[in-house]
Amino acid sequence: MAAKKQLNGSADDVEAAFYDALSRADLDGMMALWAEDEEIVCIHPGAARLIGHAAIRSSWEAIFERGSVQIRPLQLHATHNMLTAVHSIVEEFQRPSDSSQDVHILATNVYVKTPRGWRITMHHASVASGKPPLDMFKASILH
Amino acid sequence: MAAKKQLNGSADDVEAAFYDALSRADLDGMMALWAEDEEIVCIHPGAARLIGHAAIRSSWEAIFERGSVQIRPLQLHATHNMLTAVHSIVEEFQRPSDSSQDVHILATNVYVKTPRGWRITMHHASVASGKPPLDMFKASILH
Repeated sequence: MAAKKQLNGSADDVEAAFYDALSRADLDGMMALWAEDEEIVCIHPGAARLIGHAAIRSSWEAIFERGSVQIRPLQLHATHNMLTAVHSIVEEFQRPSDSSQDVHILATNVYVKTPRGWRITMHHASVASGKPPLDMFKASILH
Repeated sequence: MAAKKQLNGSADDVEAAFYDALSRADLDGMMALWAEDEEIVCIHPGAARLIGHAAIRSSWEAIFERGSVQIRPLQLHATHNMLTAVHSIVEEFQRPSDSSQDVHILATNVYVKTPRGWRITMHHASVASGKPPLDMFKASILH
């Protein structure tokens, strides 16, 4: 845990740590990846906008009470400058076997460079209808 | 139109022009607000991710063929630095009178500073269940 809290890598490193924390239902590890700023924003698929650490932490706590979340971030499409990185991702997840609808999750993750390294300032995830796109020209697997 | 194409204002100005172009179904005016960069990303509510000018222009063209889009951007929540502005907005729109479900639209709009002024690099809009939040502490009306 200590190592996570001192994470000082790139936006890509923080993104990998984000999906890793999800896969382990690691609430403290997850929250340590966010900027120390009450302006942070989190939007879970279909849910209302959450602003600030307390609201965002509560939401992840409620999610993790139901278990860990296995997501593979695919088809990273990134734009960045010296201070900000904007990542657009297709989130591949294990769908319930009785699911009849084809859907996929799109996420926008925004990272800012802080004195302690890159941190999350925005996570906006939403449901898109249809199968995940075959984005051949841009396709990349993050890790 | 010429004035729109030479728009050189702040991210807030570009955002106002974006919702104005929607309200007038002004395709050229809309597209002039995006960064001249094939890395731009647009996600319409519930739809697949679009990357690049051609795909994004086509999507707005299809939308505008059905008419103009009246949206009021409310509850702007913004973070920014010298090069990037990230806006989170609740999009208030006229719901069909026969609509039985309470939903609202959340949008993440990312602007980058270019040599020609601030431009849109990302628009991610999605449907959230429930009524729009009463975000009293952060509430602001953009224009």
